[in-house]
Amino acid sequence: MSQKNAFYAQSGGVTAVINASACGVIQTARQYPERIGTVLAGRNGIIGALTEDLIDTGLESDAAIAALRYTPSGAFGSCRYKLKSLEANRREYERLIEVFKAHDIGYFFYNGGGDSADTCYKVSQLSETMGYPVQAIHVPKTVDNDLPITDNCPGFGSVAKYIAVSTLEASYDVRSMAKTSTKIFVIEVMGRHAGWIAAAGGLVADHDIPVVILFPEVEFDQERFLAKVKANVEQYDFCTVVVSEGAHWPDGRFLAEQGTRDAFGHAQLGGAAPVVANMIKESLGYKFHWAVADYLQRAARHLASKTDVEQAYAMGKAAVEFALAGHNSVMPAVVRTSSSPYAWEVGMAPLSQVANVEKFMPRGFISEDGFGITPACREYLIPLIQGEDYPPYQDGLPAYVRLLNQSVAKKLPGSFVL
Amino acid sequence: MSQKNAFYAQSGGVTAVINASACGVIQTARQYPERIGTVLAGRNGIIGALTEDLIDTGLESDAAIAALRYTPSGAFGSCRYKLKSLEANRREYERLIEVFKAHDIGYFFYNGGGDSADTCYKVSQLSETMGYPVQAIHVPKTVDNDLPITDNCPGFGSVAKYIAVSTLEASYDVRSMAKTSTKIFVIEVMGRHAGWIAAAGGLVADHDIPVVILFPEVEFDQERFLAKVKANVEQYDFCTVVVSEGAHWPDGRFLAEQGTRDAFGHAQLGGAAPVVANMIKESLGYKFHWAVADYLQRAARHLASKTDVEQAYAMGKAAVEFALAGHNSVMPAVVRTSSSPYAWEVGMAPLSQVANVEKFMPRGFISEDGFGITPACREYLIPLIQGEDYPPYQDGLPAYVRLLNQSVAKKLPGSFVL
Repeated sequence: MSQKNAFYAQSGGVTAVINASACGVIQTARQYPERIGTVLAGRNGIIGALTEDLIDTGLESDAAIAALRYTPSGAFGSCRYKLKSLEANRREYERLIEVFKAHDIGYFFYNGGGDSADTCYKVSQLSETMGYPVQAIHVPKTVDNDLPITDNCPGFGSVAKYIAVSTLEASYDVRSMAKTSTKIFVIEVMGRHAGWIAAAGGLVADHDIPVVILFPEVEFDQERFLAKVKANVEQYDFCTVVVSEGAHWPDGRFLAEQGTRDAFGHAQLGGAAPVVANMIKESLGYKFHWAVADYLQRAARHLASKTDVEQAYAMGKAAVEFALAGHNSVMPAVVRTSSSPYAWEVGMAPLSQVANVEKFMPRGFISEDGFGITPACREYLIPLIQGEDYPPYQDGLPAYVRLLNQSVAKKLPGSFVL
Repeated sequence: MSQKNAFYAQSGGVTAVINASACGVIQTARQYPERIGTVLAGRNGIIGALTEDLIDTGLESDAAIAALRYTPSGAFGSCRYKLKSLEANRREYERLIEVFKAHDIGYFFYNGGGDSADTCYKVSQLSETMGYPVQAIHVPKTVDNDLPITDNCPGFGSVAKYIAVSTLEASYDVRSMAKTSTKIFVIEVMGRHAGWIAAAGGLVADHDIPVVILFPEVEFDQERFLAKVKANVEQYDFCTVVVSEGAHWPDGRFLAEQGTRDAFGHAQLGGAAPVVANMIKESLGYKFHWAVADYLQRAARHLASKTDVEQAYAMGKAAVEFALAGHNSVMPAVVRTSSSPYAWEVGMAPLSQVANVEKFMPRGFISEDGFGITPACREYLIPLIQGEDYPPYQDGLPAYVRLLNQSVAKKLPGSFVL
């Protein structure tokens, strides 16, 4: 069989372990030099392909590539750039194929969420019709855990671990202070449509911590919420609240959108956490503290789940192996074979079934009152946060790698306007 | 020499390592049963002494006490309850002595910051005049790092490590996204009066990350700040901002107090981070993300500095050794003997020189433009965040201990009204 180059790109919000998938792709590709020439990475994701800005990963040392396994963020840059539909912007897809052709790229590994699965699928289809067939394999990644078929998405387990640990630690803190000071701790977590990350905060309930979760899946009911918080404080002297950024009123407005104005009358973008905290203070009078974890949660490689790191790596590795085995338009997936003891294997999902399908929390994972998680949810989550996989440190900080990221020479005339 | 019981209490905001000091006190006391009977701990700090709610730490297993070394928060409860001056409320001090006398307490170990050092000092003085002399030893603790004499305060090093690591990780994240999305990341950190914690965020500048720090020590200059952020984005395509909760305008108003009102006209308590982020968006148009670390930073035992844990333990151990050697009205202190390689030893500070003295960042630690840290500051900070000291995990979460916390029987008649 002939040798072809490979193209790899990172898409959308980055995670603590997306580079572990990159590591899996590149290390595996390096094991088959007779089949895969160079892995070219898109600088800033798919934009790098469109603008023919291709990073030569062949210039990176084995040690640097190995270090990707423990380095958070997107080592080649990611982007939020969604290709339009084939009908609306065929020229972008055609441009991709032209660039692939110019650089002798036969494998397209696209590491992202639902949108990139869709792009991957379309590239695969179009490349056939354009007479330059490319094997397109999607590598799953999303902290939101919203891809179908795969049991979970690499990136999610580490965020879940971070939120569970942080909620546990901060709850210990507020419990210490509750007698004379803070009784309420509110932590805001990511998840605009799905409450998977918020659910992870619910794991602290096993540690005798009264926790109230506000899911995006459950319409906010202020009266019932305040009653629940009050009952917790009366029983435990404190209460922890985990609020998803997507928590919303029955009319669809996010809790974070309070119509707040600053002194100049500008709309104030706040978070849901301060809104919830102030609501409790005004109604119940309890002193509060609040935190917004934001990027800290998805970048926290220092506290990654070992399970998550292993799965992220395995997805990257499997993507290359699938391509070499002749597969096309597929995505490696995590298949859970047992929850206790936890066991999983790598499966394969056709992209036609992945693209444009969003997975939400099953209603059976949310407790009847809407403020907590069920035993089924615990059983699902606990394996995903199992194990620690610490990065090496130097001078007190993680020794994360920065790659050389040198581009190969362009081969196409002119430039492409995005 | 005769045997006496000891009293130990935690005061003020808790930290990731205050229990490591408790561990040092109790483990060391257990080595001298002929001198120290039982360590009685105040439930919820000094309030436990005033209300005669004394926890019998003798009922805790050696394993549970050992686990305090890696458990954040205050295991016995802390409080924000400042004893008034001797003149204003002599009855509280007299009550303390009565309780100590009733429970045969000859040693008073008080683990806290400036206020508790002051209380400790007064108890020592008053107990002499009341004819029931108690040896009062203060054990230093404060994330604010604002105690004098000691080179640093246990609790600070771990917060500094957490903020430095989190700032590094989130900066990697925003750098990945900057091409098409977020260019600004703002993280808000603790420190209402002193910028020690914010300074730790400045350590990421060594990792080629453009970071702008807003210290409470430097009056906020909006124009210069925005110019600095703009210059960074033009050079690096992104910029990280570390804002101290104490950052303020020239007239003293905190950045967080923006006169913001919600839809009902209520004053909105926000954070400094969203204010700064929105300011950048409105003036420069850059997309932003922001985080408020709040309790997460001081509770993050999962990422404690090994140096900090060792010093916290050493301070607790030294407090007991000082007491047994006959010292009174003193505080163990960290004495730095070398920065590179880092070396330190335990010193002793008289409480008369500790009480009511606050230590600020030296101006020489802040860069000339007011937005960064100097090499001298780096040299000071780096040893304090050195080393990792991970807790054990179970089911994906740290296996922190909860003590039995059983009280001994009261011996005094009636109750004490706080």
